[in-house]
Amino acid sequence: MREVVIAGVGMCKLGRYPDKELTDLGHEAAMNALADADMEWKDIQAMFCANAYGGMGVGHQIAYSIGKTGIPIVNVENACSAGASALRLCFQSIAAGLYDVCFAIGVEKIPGGLLDDTSWPEYERCMGFNVQPAQYALEIQRHMVEYGTTEEQIAMVVVKNRKNGCLNPYAGFQQEVSLEEVLNSRMIAKPLRRLMCCANGDGAAAAILCSENKLKTKSRKVIVAASVLSSESYGNVKGGGSVKIHNPDRIEICAKQAYEMSGYGPEDIDIVEAYDTMASSEITSVEELGICEKGEYGRLLEEGATEINGRIPVNTSGGLMSRRHPLSATGLAQIAEIVWQLRGEAKQRQVLYAAYRCR
Amino acid sequence: MREVVIAGVGMCKLGRYPDKELTDLGHEAAMNALADADMEWKDIQAMFCANAYGGMGVGHQIAYSIGKTGIPIVNVENACSAGASALRLCFQSIAAGLYDVCFAIGVEKIPGGLLDDTSWPEYERCMGFNVQPAQYALEIQRHMVEYGTTEEQIAMVVVKNRKNGCLNPYAGFQQEVSLEEVLNSRMIAKPLRRLMCCANGDGAAAAILCSENKLKTKSRKVIVAASVLSSESYGNVKGGGSVKIHNPDRIEICAKQAYEMSGYGPEDIDIVEAYDTMASSEITSVEELGICEKGEYGRLLEEGATEINGRIPVNTSGGLMSRRHPLSATGLAQIAEIVWQLRGEAKQRQVLYAAYRCR
Repeated sequence: MREVVIAGVGMCKLGRYPDKELTDLGHEAAMNALADADMEWKDIQAMFCANAYGGMGVGHQIAYSIGKTGIPIVNVENACSAGASALRLCFQSIAAGLYDVCFAIGVEKIPGGLLDDTSWPEYERCMGFNVQPAQYALEIQRHMVEYGTTEEQIAMVVVKNRKNGCLNPYAGFQQEVSLEEVLNSRMIAKPLRRLMCCANGDGAAAAILCSENKLKTKSRKVIVAASVLSSESYGNVKGGGSVKIHNPDRIEICAKQAYEMSGYGPEDIDIVEAYDTMASSEITSVEELGICEKGEYGRLLEEGATEINGRIPVNTSGGLMSRRHPLSATGLAQIAEIVWQLRGEAKQRQVLYAAYRCR
Repeated sequence: MREVVIAGVGMCKLGRYPDKELTDLGHEAAMNALADADMEWKDIQAMFCANAYGGMGVGHQIAYSIGKTGIPIVNVENACSAGASALRLCFQSIAAGLYDVCFAIGVEKIPGGLLDDTSWPEYERCMGFNVQPAQYALEIQRHMVEYGTTEEQIAMVVVKNRKNGCLNPYAGFQQEVSLEEVLNSRMIAKPLRRLMCCANGDGAAAAILCSENKLKTKSRKVIVAASVLSSESYGNVKGGGSVKIHNPDRIEICAKQAYEMSGYGPEDIDIVEAYDTMASSEITSVEELGICEKGEYGRLLEEGATEINGRIPVNTSGGLMSRRHPLSATGLAQIAEIVWQLRGEAKQRQVLYAAYRCR
């Protein structure tokens, strides 16, 4: 397997775009990624496009809005993991030598109204488990019982991320919120309150991956050390995968695989973009990555260790709390932030010791 | 790149299943494929699931209905090519050595009512080009002008395929139609009449691909000599890609790539499953594969060369004309037929000289 690097990333500002077409959002992110990589569209050899709600041929429409070059295009639907799945398909195609330059894009316009997620079994949907707060509430309730995690600590995730989001021009929300505002916002599913739940959003994010010899700007070489994907295994008790009783979760499985693939360990990680679809999921997912012990993340939050200038900054982009959550675009928006940080281009939110780590 | 073989295929009968869940259809095809490959679900290392209309996590739901093994699962949407795209992702993953055993499945329940395909630009949809007969009618009209192809020849595709379908227990339609019935059926888009247009359908088809060392039944070794994918290139004048004026089409581009990859040429082909979404598209696509000269396919039909016992049998399964067209399942249903034919297991519709070609 040969080395794979990220040549460029691009986004559009995430938000609500009732008057824009899905293709417009994708086109903007795609052109930004091409400019960032100093590449032309004809350099791209294959494209993977993540989308859930746009109907058929979304990647093809975005590609055609730039130019019809005859490359293979595959549209990917993998719920909240779709953007990361598109990236991984690019990664493995290049690592295996199938292509030299691949394009990953995630784009979404979330339809209005309550999203009835049909991917949960009927008996769970009847009980209201087709909406995320219900699932994550169960998970964090257990965490609170086991480790003493507090509502204040969950709220601290929101305060930190919304503060970081003010420094990110691509974030949908750029206003701080106070601990009191979070803790006084409406209860959705105990202990998760409205400001602890990410907002839906529209938008797009893209990344161009290539083999090292195709990189135009050698000084900005960002290596993909690992990219893994896993679905649920036995031990998780429900289809959604949020509830588990002391069984390794997908994040732990993926983290283990990624550490093995890369040769790095959790102690080597400088910066984390974590999936804060609920404020609580930042807590559980960073712990499952092995960045700290189980039950320890609340303390890291209190100590300020996860702030931009802290020991292990988490969600410097503002996370889903600030960016909003345009489903299939989210994974690549996270990748964009990591790339900017590693290149030292994250401006006001730059993590100093992460910069210029491009090896 | 190492050799990739098809270890097993499976289908459910294609038809209309208002009372079945999408997962039921996929589960049936998946279990049939596992039995055919003499494998267990825990042998599968990665899964690619093709679907367009089922919402989120379709592959995950089918996988979970069998067992949660934690493998990577990616859902693929690529319109009528989705099943073949899932197969190709398995093929390239195994060829590159990323996995040894991969699972491709295509499953679809087509929603009721007129399908407003949003993948065409607004100005084309306004003109009615969001339905397939309109596009293919333009294409075959040009073919009739250039090569003298007749309405009778187009109708012969239907008569042949519906006759073959009577021999296929998985086909949705198992009744013959006469040339007169086809030519007297209602006009949809000149010269395409109702019986020249495939019907929608529900169903699933699956294939298990593996490296040669993982094959359980060595005597049934079906090698994937090539698998390629291409989107439109400049020269096609519209988003849908059906209309072209003397420019190489995607099929010609793909055929050229597949011949190069495999080392075979059109003269080596024993049997063809072609995309007869309209009867006319069997004519144009087989010609674009280089099986015969442009404009020659009508004569092959008249001579009976494309019948099961002819020189170059086309759509022995009955094609989309008999199977119906459960969008994302179609590509893998075509693959299943080719596998059965190569193994000599196609029973009444077996092409004698194709059997036991498994190399």
